[in-house]
Amino acid sequence: MDLKNREEILNEFINFLKLPSISATGEGIEETAFYLRDLMNRFGIKGEVKKTKGHPVLIGEVKVKNAKRTILFYNHYDVQPVDPVNEWKFSPFSAKIIGDRIYARGSSDNKGTLIARLFAVKELMERGELGINVKFLFEGEEEIGSPNLEEFVKENAGEIRADSVVMEGSTLDLKGRPQIVLGVKGLVYIQLDLETGERDLHSSNAPIVYNPAWLLIKILNTMIDEKGKILIKGFYEDVRELGREFEDLIEKYDLDVEEFKKALGAKELKYTDRLKVVKALFTEPTCNIDGLYSGYIGEESKTIVPRKAFAKLDFRLVPDQDPRKILELIVNHLRENGFRGDIKVLGLERPVRTSPNLPVVKAMVESARIVYNVEPIIIPNSAGTQPMGLFTHVAKIRDAVSAIGVGDPYSNAHAPNESIRIENLFKAIQHTMEFIRIYEKY
Amino acid sequence: MDLKNREEILNEFINFLKLPSISATGEGIEETAFYLRDLMNRFGIKGEVKKTKGHPVLIGEVKVKNAKRTILFYNHYDVQPVDPVNEWKFSPFSAKIIGDRIYARGSSDNKGTLIARLFAVKELMERGELGINVKFLFEGEEEIGSPNLEEFVKENAGEIRADSVVMEGSTLDLKGRPQIVLGVKGLVYIQLDLETGERDLHSSNAPIVYNPAWLLIKILNTMIDEKGKILIKGFYEDVRELGREFEDLIEKYDLDVEEFKKALGAKELKYTDRLKVVKALFTEPTCNIDGLYSGYIGEESKTIVPRKAFAKLDFRLVPDQDPRKILELIVNHLRENGFRGDIKVLGLERPVRTSPNLPVVKAMVESARIVYNVEPIIIPNSAGTQPMGLFTHVAKIRDAVSAIGVGDPYSNAHAPNESIRIENLFKAIQHTMEFIRIYEKY
Repeated sequence: MDLKNREEILNEFINFLKLPSISATGEGIEETAFYLRDLMNRFGIKGEVKKTKGHPVLIGEVKVKNAKRTILFYNHYDVQPVDPVNEWKFSPFSAKIIGDRIYARGSSDNKGTLIARLFAVKELMERGELGINVKFLFEGEEEIGSPNLEEFVKENAGEIRADSVVMEGSTLDLKGRPQIVLGVKGLVYIQLDLETGERDLHSSNAPIVYNPAWLLIKILNTMIDEKGKILIKGFYEDVRELGREFEDLIEKYDLDVEEFKKALGAKELKYTDRLKVVKALFTEPTCNIDGLYSGYIGEESKTIVPRKAFAKLDFRLVPDQDPRKILELIVNHLRENGFRGDIKVLGLERPVRTSPNLPVVKAMVESARIVYNVEPIIIPNSAGTQPMGLFTHVAKIRDAVSAIGVGDPYSNAHAPNESIRIENLFKAIQHTMEFIRIYEKY
Repeated sequence: MDLKNREEILNEFINFLKLPSISATGEGIEETAFYLRDLMNRFGIKGEVKKTKGHPVLIGEVKVKNAKRTILFYNHYDVQPVDPVNEWKFSPFSAKIIGDRIYARGSSDNKGTLIARLFAVKELMERGELGINVKFLFEGEEEIGSPNLEEFVKENAGEIRADSVVMEGSTLDLKGRPQIVLGVKGLVYIQLDLETGERDLHSSNAPIVYNPAWLLIKILNTMIDEKGKILIKGFYEDVRELGREFEDLIEKYDLDVEEFKKALGAKELKYTDRLKVVKALFTEPTCNIDGLYSGYIGEESKTIVPRKAFAKLDFRLVPDQDPRKILELIVNHLRENGFRGDIKVLGLERPVRTSPNLPVVKAMVESARIVYNVEPIIIPNSAGTQPMGLFTHVAKIRDAVSAIGVGDPYSNAHAPNESIRIENLFKAIQHTMEFIRIYEKY
């Protein structure tokens, strides 16, 4: 299925990328929501901006007469913050094209995938080839842990009901193979804040006042061991065994460890063995430090006992760890170990892992083979997180899959110089079109 | 000895405070050095700006015919950085007067003390009452650990030679009593830097890449125990016993723990017992975290594995700990415990503790009684650090004392809203004048 309007697509993509939509700060969120509604309406998709307690959700719908199936596409129009901004080669919202790539915050995660789906449905409609009902849900808070999506899904369960949901979050691997992801890790994101005084003090007072940085280090140290094993009582209790079906998928997943390391820009990986890397990535829950702060962090020296310290931590969960239960275990651990500061919850998401034998998965595999001319990669669940659990557990949509993405291992999602190969935008449109046509027949 | 030119003194002090002179960034350093040279020359003191590899040193001299003694006054014209700048009630260099206090970075540490000494010598000269030779040495790098002062003192030992040196660093206590400090703690200031990758990564990679924040926490955790005891092998080996003479001084040192806590703005002190607080403050070496950083420290959440982490640490030393030897022990400890990052040395200073039976101490005690009409407090060594060791160990000036300060426990040295009571500036001038007159007779 060739695309004749590549220039139009690229120009519209650039318009979209130039709109900042940083959920952490709110910058550009409203403008981007209304831009997308107008874009859907221009495409013949009934778009609507729905208010939430936080950033708005966009929904869209195309009804097809006598359609037997309904698909829901989930994406997010918000992006991560851009800092450290001085490490960007180009301004993060300039959408600069260099060679075959386009650079912008959100290009890979996840504006490219979002707009590809809209163009695919527009194209099918124009060709008179759309045979199923299509719904869209684009949220504006994915990058801050989707705090208001659960309530939205609950209140609008009827409106978003579908036979299956296609999430974002899939990318192409190092060999250019599309990944089809059968689940997601869950998330608990917390911030620990400690304040020991009204102000920073001269560090000559160190013998007699408590230093919040030391207190924080001592408590953090109790949470994981040298190898990254989490020391919180009961943390691993509900981890589901993979089972043969998924073990097979992991064993089949090929990955060049050296090339992967290079793509990540990491000096070292924890494992050199392929299977260990793959298994850890897809099945290990983690306790990660996202940010750490106390006192003076400028040039040279300043001799103070800081008045406060904080840490931002994310825990990635795997089935069947329940984020609410895990949060409770974490809080208990912190309190039992003497942590007396504040614990702020910044995100909770359920882990999901779905069966590979569903029509949506099969249609995805077949369409991927056609468009990319390779065997796609099937992954038990993504290493990252997205609110798939809300669609499966709250909206009760049985079939869920993450697929059709524009990113690759060089895309720098969540990092400076995020980019995609422009060709992968067109491929994602074609993949979506093929998927819809095949899914109609299952 | 009354002062008739209080308005002139205060106006000149304000001029001085309005000049930023932040050694960590270099802001305003040159301008301040030349301002002070001109001020000295206006006062009839032969002032000179001397270059170093870093910020310039000011020296000044007044020779008196047939004088039997020479005193050296050491001060520093540089100040700490001003951040967190949003916690200041007034702009840090506005020198705002509220009630009986004046607010500015450097007002207490140590521009007030510096200018008081200049005014005292000017006043004695004008009255024809200066009976000893006076030398001044004002450095511009005290707040960054005096990295070039040792070389300066070595090269200019002849020029700064004196019978005794009066350092800065003394303040008034809660009861308004002047402190006479017989020594200083030493210092080792280091920064630990860890880099594990080229860029921040999506935290879905946490199972397979090393997180520099976790590595840093694990290594820092090996350095002190829960009670603040330093776990570095050999660290306490050279700590000198206090001896009866100094034990007595500590036992006599009265301090209202509750009031002291309030003045510091600390929620809690490590000890409630007066003697424990005093002993810790004056005799305990410490390992303090001045600053800690990794990853995302903005609002809300960002899910990354940071690419780097760092910590700034100061170790306060007591006699006879040698900063070079202690640094070696620290480096060995870090390497033995697997730290593979950079270790940057940002400051090294010797600890000093001098005998209370010297003429300079006795003259200081007598003059303090006259001016403040109370019994001064004698402290074995300060809780803070200053380069006293260079004068005693390198320039071989036997008698050293820290005394005559303008600060009090509410002065917020090194913190936002630094201030002094204006009256204490005048008192410091009078104290300096009386001290010089009495010292002449010993």
